[in-house]
Amino acid sequence: MDRSRLEAFSDGVFAVAITLLALNITVEGPGHGRLQHQLWEHRWSFAAYLLSFFVIGIIWVNHHVLIKSIALVDRTLLFLNLVLLLFVVLIPFSTATAAEYLPVGGPDVKVAMAMYSAVFLGMSIGFSSIFEWTLHGDHRTVPLYSEAHWPARLRFVGGSGVYVVSFVVSLFNATIAFILIALVALYYIVERTPASPAAPESPPDQ
Amino acid sequence: MDRSRLEAFSDGVFAVAITLLALNITVEGPGHGRLQHQLWEHRWSFAAYLLSFFVIGIIWVNHHVLIKSIALVDRTLLFLNLVLLLFVVLIPFSTATAAEYLPVGGPDVKVAMAMYSAVFLGMSIGFSSIFEWTLHGDHRTVPLYSEAHWPARLRFVGGSGVYVVSFVVSLFNATIAFILIALVALYYIVERTPASPAAPESPPDQ
Amino acid sequence: MDRSRLEAFSDGVFAVAITLLALNITVEGPGHGRLQHQLWEHRWSFAAYLLSFFVIGIIWVNHHVLIKSIALVDRTLLFLNLVLLLFVVLIPFSTATAAEYLPVGGPDVKVAMAMYSAVFLGMSIGFSSIFEWTLHGDHRTVPLYSEAHWPARLRFVGGSGVYVVSFVVSLFNATIAFILIALVALYYIVERTPASPAAPESPPDQ
Amino acid sequence: MDRSRLEAFSDGVFAVAITLLALNITVEGPGHGRLQHQLWEHRWSFAAYLLSFFVIGIIWVNHHVLIKSIALVDRTLLFLNLVLLLFVVLIPFSTATAAEYLPVGGPDVKVAMAMYSAVFLGMSIGFSSIFEWTLHGDHRTVPLYSEAHWPARLRFVGGSGVYVVSFVVSLFNATIAFILIALVALYYIVERTPASPAAPESPPDQ
Repeated sequence: MDRSRLEAFSDGVFAVAITLLALNITVEGPGHGRLQHQLWEHRWSFAAYLLSFFVIGIIWVNHHVLIKSIALVDRTLLFLNLVLLLFVVLIPFSTATAAEYLPVGGPDVKVAMAMYSAVFLGMSIGFSSIFEWTLHGDHRTVPLYSEAHWPARLRFVGGSGVYVVSFVVSLFNATIAFILIALVALYYIVERTPASPAAPESPPDQ
Repeated sequence: MDRSRLEAFSDGVFAVAITLLALNITVEGPGHGRLQHQLWEHRWSFAAYLLSFFVIGIIWVNHHVLIKSIALVDRTLLFLNLVLLLFVVLIPFSTATAAEYLPVGGPDVKVAMAMYSAVFLGMSIGFSSIFEWTLHGDHRTVPLYSEAHWPARLRFVGGSGVYVVSFVVSLFNATIAFILIALVALYYIVERTPASPAAPESPPDQ
Repeated sequence: MDRSRLEAFSDGVFAVAITLLALNITVEGPGHGRLQHQLWEHRWSFAAYLLSFFVIGIIWVNHHVLIKSIALVDRTLLFLNLVLLLFVVLIPFSTATAAEYLPVGGPDVKVAMAMYSAVFLGMSIGFSSIFEWTLHGDHRTVPLYSEAHWPARLRFVGGSGVYVVSFVVSLFNATIAFILIALVALYYIVERTPASPAAPESPPDQ
Repeated sequence: MDRSRLEAFSDGVFAVAITLLALNITVEGPGHGRLQHQLWEHRWSFAAYLLSFFVIGIIWVNHHVLIKSIALVDRTLLFLNLVLLLFVVLIPFSTATAAEYLPVGGPDVKVAMAMYSAVFLGMSIGFSSIFEWTLHGDHRTVPLYSEAHWPARLRFVGGSGVYVVSFVVSLFNATIAFILIALVALYYIVERTPASPAAPESPPDQ
């Protein structure tokens, strides 16, 4: 089984999930208060949209790098990938719920943010499983993480640790948990350490 | 006509259908009862989401293996594939209906689960038709099922039998029908008999 | 500009539009009447879903054959393709409207079915424009319709005529217009005249 | 990292966003007034759908040309592309809001059209950033804009200027801002200056 359909299907799910995120942002029609007030009341929806968009974007970039290093696509890998996608698909739901409860506070927002963290944690565990699987046997083709794979492991698996922490933090303070996830996403976006040897591709071969 | 657009279109439909599944999971905003109670009341939505997600995932994996073995994509194959997709697209609807009626019980849940089984049965018949079509004439390129194709037939066509049984069972007990489909899905996920000769691909050729 | 992204983007739009069709099929939760009665009341939704699904499926198959015969993808072609997609994207809306008004009758159903026909007509005109464009200059690579392109023209452009007729008929009797479109769709599905020379592809080159 | 998955993911997001545009067009079922009156009341929804469809279509065409000229896909490019997509995904929301408030007038429609322009502006800035990035270092492979890249820059970056103007205009007159964006879109569709050297591709290599 070749890598291309695994990538095509995953890209499809990532693309649909990332686009459905914005379905949660709606305003009422005329006659429901001034529009700028409505938009201001939805500020958490925009913030949650922004954060979830980049979390999905980052996992998509990393998914790219990881799948590209895999030589053999077997059934176990396909099902580990399905576990990853199972949680990606839930992100629009957990994002909408977090955005609805974040402005309110109280005990419910802790449940909402715990669920928000838990969905990311599930996604991250799915991703880490694929990474660990590629370290076994002949699954890798690129000698990418072969000898000193600890930095890559830290990078790819580290996300799970962050989401465990944000899960625990959200039981005490949902806003701090939200900021924590946002800071880690920001770190992943700005850091420039290449996760893979950046070899210029030769366009004709593509 | 080449295989790649057949795969691209099918992957698109699979990806959208599997992502729309989660649209059925929603909670009410603040002021409609504690969030954890709402989530608990939606436990059947989560269970039905989980099951339908993996049923679509399994059919996608099998679709992969099957289409890859086909040499000639003709119009008949394209329309058999459309029949398969016709039912895949209905899965979010049948899943949402089953999830709504499963907590209630009564005669309606039997109708809901019968429809849930019937949509899977239609999908499975569409899939089996593609398989049977590939056994005729020169449609196959890989000598995959040429001589002893009974195991593959059992594997690919067996799903239809399961859904006939779950359809009948759902007329008596909807919950047992749900568990039956879940057990078969679990079996497909954990069993490791390769459906195709797993030849490591050579990445540069991809 | 190469053909592959034109195909990928079009396939994406076709796949999303065909999957969104089923979003129009919903039932109310428990407490809104027996489920089988609800399903029966939605019989026109199922019929309209079925018809629109295969109309999109047929145009997708023909789009395949047509785009494959094109050598040069220029900006004009890209915008003609956008016109085609503009109407494809409207199909879920026109289908939902037709399905809502078909059970009711009266003057509104004629408007609904006229719009249903008009959206298909727009799609068909977009498709015909691409076909006519490929007959000019050096756009074709496969000498597919070069000498005697009237059968192909009849096939590809004939759809527009059907939808003009069904548009006019719908102003008098919406049900007959619906049946007319369904019969033509059925004809396209069952007829086996190949629209392109069916050459078996060589899988390794793919 | 190769260009193909960047294209596949972007095409997926473009395709889903362009298809979701039409979800904003709905009519009420029977018993809510004559259908043609309802359709007429939704004329701004149709106009806004049409405009946003072609704005997304134009940016997709330009995205094509631009990405095709890039030799090296690095992490910075992936994240600049995510910024572009972040705003593309918001277009169905800003379109629906503009369509709801355009028939009403008053101060709210100015906010709605300012937001409509702002989302396009964000998209345009994301696109311009990719273009500017490709002018640095070894990112380009095709010597497309190497020596005299000012025409291309004007073309690719000019859109941002238009949206700044329409943003300011919308604070005074929302309808004129709408017409301004429509005229620019029309210009991009009808002008035939090739943005890239149109070399006929050789189909077998694809």
